[in-house]
Amino acid sequence: MNNEQAEIVISEKELVINMLIAAWDVQNKRMADFLDKISDEELAAECSPGRNTGTYLLGHLTAVSDSMIKLFGLGDKLYPELEELFITSPDNSGKTIPSISTLREQYHAVTSELHKHFSKMTSDDWFSRHMSVSTEDFAKEPHRNKLNVLISRTAHFNGHFYQMLYLKKK
Amino acid sequence: MNNEQAEIVISEKELVINMLIAAWDVQNKRMADFLDKISDEELAAECSPGRNTGTYLLGHLTAVSDSMIKLFGLGDKLYPELEELFITSPDNSGKTIPSISTLREQYHAVTSELHKHFSKMTSDDWFSRHMSVSTEDFAKEPHRNKLNVLISRTAHFNGHFYQMLYLKKK
Repeated sequence: MNNEQAEIVISEKELVINMLIAAWDVQNKRMADFLDKISDEELAAECSPGRNTGTYLLGHLTAVSDSMIKLFGLGDKLYPELEELFITSPDNSGKTIPSISTLREQYHAVTSELHKHFSKMTSDDWFSRHMSVSTEDFAKEPHRNKLNVLISRTAHFNGHFYQMLYLKKK
Repeated sequence: MNNEQAEIVISEKELVINMLIAAWDVQNKRMADFLDKISDEELAAECSPGRNTGTYLLGHLTAVSDSMIKLFGLGDKLYPELEELFITSPDNSGKTIPSISTLREQYHAVTSELHKHFSKMTSDDWFSRHMSVSTEDFAKEPHRNKLNVLISRTAHFNGHFYQMLYLKKK
């Protein structure tokens, strides 16, 4: 392999990271547009009878996104209290949850914080281990990197977002 | 850059492709498990009142996956007739659609065909243009490659799969 080829390879590595960040950003942009258009009342409804409310899913997605900050070793969660309310506990747990307007703000704050961090991460950062895998395990399983977390979080996010689309009145 | 570094970079390029194919495969495995457990009657219901039926979404996902075969220049679609029924037309269009058992078989056939093709594709294949972008445009927009199609199809697939999860009785 000569240097010219190596440069092309490097560029593809960066390209795929950009593609994956773009896919994440697109989804968050769609969610932001959706939240702009949906009322608190619509958001409080169940996505399908007997299923999660939009409120719960919004809190859930914020909590899961927030957990990436810690999982990537970028700092502390902005709203650690959301984990118990929207990840550990199911919907309608009887626990006191933030108001819908607070949940909207928290979603935007976490998205914005993640975006800020992502824009500073290098290609090598993305291919490095996330904080839930040990150095030893990572040596054997190099796919357990931060980029893979982003891939699975993107699919997870879109899954719940498509469920939330059912909240919008036709 | 020396050769050793170049090798690491190459390996990461292959790694990320494997990660993305694995993410696609995981979703299709979950769908297969889901289809094993859900009855035709449950599948024929609406995911939420007034929304798409599971039958339509199954046909839709099969049609969209099938279109990747052509979009990647790998051959002809297995079931070209599905496009008009499940992409161009909405649910309950009045058009005659295949039986649910046929739709189940077609889903598995397309998934299996794609898996076969994916396993033969090289890293460079994945970073090459898909068939809907011209060589000229691709030179300016190198992110319009096959891997990016897989990324967006994976998110799309999971979105509809999460909607279909609402069909399973609790």
